[in-house]
Amino acid sequence: MQNKPSLPVIKRLPRYYRYLGEMEQSGVVKVSSSELARMMGTTASQVRQDFNCFGGFGQQGIGYNVKLLREELGKLLFGRRPVPTVLIGAGNLGHAMANYLRKDAQGFALQAAFDVKPEMVGLTLCDVPILDMKELGSYCAEHRPKVAVICVPREAAAQVARQLIDLGVRAFWNFSHYDFSIEFPDVVVENVHLGDSLATLSYEVNNNL
Amino acid sequence: MQNKPSLPVIKRLPRYYRYLGEMEQSGVVKVSSSELARMMGTTASQVRQDFNCFGGFGQQGIGYNVKLLREELGKLLFGRRPVPTVLIGAGNLGHAMANYLRKDAQGFALQAAFDVKPEMVGLTLCDVPILDMKELGSYCAEHRPKVAVICVPREAAAQVARQLIDLGVRAFWNFSHYDFSIEFPDVVVENVHLGDSLATLSYEVNNNL
Repeated sequence: MQNKPSLPVIKRLPRYYRYLGEMEQSGVVKVSSSELARMMGTTASQVRQDFNCFGGFGQQGIGYNVKLLREELGKLLFGRRPVPTVLIGAGNLGHAMANYLRKDAQGFALQAAFDVKPEMVGLTLCDVPILDMKELGSYCAEHRPKVAVICVPREAAAQVARQLIDLGVRAFWNFSHYDFSIEFPDVVVENVHLGDSLATLSYEVNNNL
Repeated sequence: MQNKPSLPVIKRLPRYYRYLGEMEQSGVVKVSSSELARMMGTTASQVRQDFNCFGGFGQQGIGYNVKLLREELGKLLFGRRPVPTVLIGAGNLGHAMANYLRKDAQGFALQAAFDVKPEMVGLTLCDVPILDMKELGSYCAEHRPKVAVICVPREAAAQVARQLIDLGVRAFWNFSHYDFSIEFPDVVVENVHLGDSLATLSYEVNNNL
């Protein structure tokens, strides 16, 4: 019997995947649930429960094969083929994230960037064209991107979000402070709130150091 | 009696601050704990408890003055003067984060960037000099930065972290996958794990859309 994985379980998968990659690079062949638990800061029983959500991946008492376990997690995380992705907002942050997507990440195929600035339209960013935001509708109708990376200022984000959702995009890597979940509880969103992260750091530095 | 604020409370402060800024911009003067609670997705009692950790900020039944409350939270979050900060790793991600620190963030004064690439040393990045990593020791001895932004590849991060901690840096905005908390439980770290965030998004797109 498999349980449907909860969000905390899903959020642990990338870390398992990362640690297994490091083990594989160091030539480690087998790993026990207790060793994984130690790296993850959790218990062996939690590790086994996590994996049981996806069918188990191993046999009790023998430990997991590092390479196979990582492959299985990789299939779960990254699917069979890269997901067509667009970038909205080709400024500095957008540029950095486009680079990150293409060089450091798996699972996403960046296919176009969009911006409102006339001087950027027609240029390329990480080998993809920068298109005018006015072309977003026709582009989406033709290419059906599944994911949008939102790197526009806060003021623009709400409207861009509504437009993209109307156009069928259902998953977002969101760097803006627009909160998708209030208006659109059913879309998939990963928020990266750089400002909140920095403000928390600032609090700690000013009050606890 | 004030309780020492827990990490979850601290992590809510930037969101309160953000929402209050939006209210102030819209001309809102007073706000009740229930209204704040609704924006935060929590309860009025939780909001009052959060603020009681810092002395309260308001009088029961009257509501909070938006501008004053925001100013108080701002003092807590950002202190009196910007904290001297260095950037380690002046590549694309480092460039974007330097920009972000200077244009979009409060509380940090970026003073220098460091890189190992000879062709970058001597250039400037967002008006600060890019110095050779070999100069990090003498720079820190002279300028005593309090915060380092870590934008180096995973392979380099552990060594850079140890070096900075030896040099007296105690707070980190960490984009690498190096886990400070294992070796250095006492330093202040805000991790931004872009790769884990993308992998989680990829899982959701491949399995739940």
